[in-house]
Amino acid sequence: MIGRYFDYNATTPLREEVASTMIENIMLFGNPSSTHSFGQLAKLKMEEARLHVATLINAEETDIFFTSGGTESINTALKGHFLSNDKRPFHIITSKIEHAATLEVCRYLSTLGAEITYLPVDTNGFIAIEDLKNAIQENTALVSIMFANNEIGSIQPIQEMVRVVKNINSNIIFHVDAVQVIGKIQIDVRDLGVDALSMAAHKIYGPKGTGALYLKNGERKLDQLLHGGGQEKGFRGGTENLLAIIGFGKACEMAKEELMQNANKIIALRSYFLDKLENSIEHYEINGPVLGEDLLQNTINISFLNIRAEALAVLLSQTYGIAVSIGSACSADKANLSHVLLALGLSEDRIKSSIRISFGNYTDYKDIDYFMESLKASVNRLRSMLPVG
Amino acid sequence: MIGRYFDYNATTPLREEVASTMIENIMLFGNPSSTHSFGQLAKLKMEEARLHVATLINAEETDIFFTSGGTESINTALKGHFLSNDKRPFHIITSKIEHAATLEVCRYLSTLGAEITYLPVDTNGFIAIEDLKNAIQENTALVSIMFANNEIGSIQPIQEMVRVVKNINSNIIFHVDAVQVIGKIQIDVRDLGVDALSMAAHKIYGPKGTGALYLKNGERKLDQLLHGGGQEKGFRGGTENLLAIIGFGKACEMAKEELMQNANKIIALRSYFLDKLENSIEHYEINGPVLGEDLLQNTINISFLNIRAEALAVLLSQTYGIAVSIGSACSADKANLSHVLLALGLSEDRIKSSIRISFGNYTDYKDIDYFMESLKASVNRLRSMLPVG
Repeated sequence: MIGRYFDYNATTPLREEVASTMIENIMLFGNPSSTHSFGQLAKLKMEEARLHVATLINAEETDIFFTSGGTESINTALKGHFLSNDKRPFHIITSKIEHAATLEVCRYLSTLGAEITYLPVDTNGFIAIEDLKNAIQENTALVSIMFANNEIGSIQPIQEMVRVVKNINSNIIFHVDAVQVIGKIQIDVRDLGVDALSMAAHKIYGPKGTGALYLKNGERKLDQLLHGGGQEKGFRGGTENLLAIIGFGKACEMAKEELMQNANKIIALRSYFLDKLENSIEHYEINGPVLGEDLLQNTINISFLNIRAEALAVLLSQTYGIAVSIGSACSADKANLSHVLLALGLSEDRIKSSIRISFGNYTDYKDIDYFMESLKASVNRLRSMLPVG
Repeated sequence: MIGRYFDYNATTPLREEVASTMIENIMLFGNPSSTHSFGQLAKLKMEEARLHVATLINAEETDIFFTSGGTESINTALKGHFLSNDKRPFHIITSKIEHAATLEVCRYLSTLGAEITYLPVDTNGFIAIEDLKNAIQENTALVSIMFANNEIGSIQPIQEMVRVVKNINSNIIFHVDAVQVIGKIQIDVRDLGVDALSMAAHKIYGPKGTGALYLKNGERKLDQLLHGGGQEKGFRGGTENLLAIIGFGKACEMAKEELMQNANKIIALRSYFLDKLENSIEHYEINGPVLGEDLLQNTINISFLNIRAEALAVLLSQTYGIAVSIGSACSADKANLSHVLLALGLSEDRIKSSIRISFGNYTDYKDIDYFMESLKASVNRLRSMLPVG
């Protein structure tokens, strides 16, 4: 069953070790804010988890604030800085290929008076450093860039970007959406020099419903998103999601331990996948970067000539039990085409025929064999159904 | 161990049935937004849970929006209506004894230009309907009242309040913080007539990290708090906290089934507790309502003459393993005295000597026996240590 799952970028299965840890602690129920022993035991477990999260990105524990997930982390970083700052217009630089969490927040903040620059990307999904440099204005207050793109896997040179931005104006806050990269590539927030970084547990074999916002030096010069009982040192109200946080900690611990090993395995799988693809199917194109170190090796976005992605995805799911993601919604409306593929400058036809395959820890060579046979049969079937022109 | 826990209002243990349901589903990991079978199975489970949550308060499933908990629900209801409304000044009526989630949001919104009226309460913690009526102004846009107070248990006449408010101006949004009452008393949103209602799973033997906001007729005329991928019909971005939501659903299902039975048990326990107390200890006073139907029967707030609550709580926890909550923080600073007890008009001494006892499903008569022996010994010990005057 799990071998037919090729949608790891959407969400990952819970690791067995994480599941065991959560089951062991499922009856631990104290409120970490309570001073009695039930509460203090809960707090201890939560702080252990915080250490694991911090360690994965080489941060201090005091720089990690738990949230309900990547979306809340991103919302907090962007809205929090906007609302705490009197500078108007408040200028934000981001890119055209960000996750909806960033784009929707920017759209919303623009209705509140923020000025937004959306940097373009090249045909492989990379932002030009020159474009970033040129976008910086007197009133630029925040830069928010995703580390790796969830649809096509392009990895931006964050460290260099931070250096460029800070050289021009060290007061500009640099936030990075690292949701898709943690656990996949080595992240060191000290080397990167970012001010804020967002992460989510469920993309690294942890549970849904929790994530974290890293803030450099624990700096909290931003308005909180959730006001309440003073949890997270007054930064985020609401009783902490104890069980999920414990699972998140375990997932980070395992991710750190196995990072190199998993990365190497994924590189080998990718190469196997691409070879097989070349030998199985004709008339396809890879969207985004194909080779190199600046891409998420587990992510492959492919367009199949004359195929509608929705039909392919349905066929793969219903006939073969295979899960992939489609790069465009099932609408003829141009507004529903993948904004990422549009930003690459791809044609509407190519976008409508694209699917995203993303694999992970539980993907094996035999799964790719099965996938490729199913894909070949499905593509052939759909192409054979084409009206004769 | 669980028998020594007397802090159910802070958080509740996970029910065994909820834990079992969560363990059964712990490996269910699909993203409910994915269209393949992994995602659709997850979505199905999530919608089952939504039905259970809706049923508990007699709402439609389409009126239930999942959040990360009570605090997020309250933040969304208050900030969402404020931000979506152009009326300025935007007048909010609330009370002096609300939970920090409401009070902190109001404090924050006042910095953004909202005008807030904090209704007083009488010595038992009840708001006078006349005060509510008189507080309504031309520009009143929102009323937010907690159904039952977490520290003293007073239950407000929400249905009557809604009628009074709507009679004056039917456009005023009425939000009720029902976090402490769901599962304890029967809630019917249709009878109440409220526009919005906040709830949290972890107060009804469900998991931490999830809750819901009920919105009458699924009305979403309020700005969303978390922008992102369009989850919850576009109302709340962020991958849903699937496992916790499944647990929340089970907790609601069980709460509905056992509501009367549990309520009757708690009434009997309270009476047993108060009798024992009267026969065991001298010089104490109950804070808030003592008898009647308009109080949370599981909640007892008591001041012990000449005792410092922190010392008593520490002694109970460390010597007897008993968990209670203290009504005031361990500071001489008046600002840190319980705002609820201050609103009752109690003296500083009385507030500083108060503890909150709250029991629940796992409390038994023998636990109260043990509690009372420990309490008596602790109070006597602390009183014997008093400096001779």
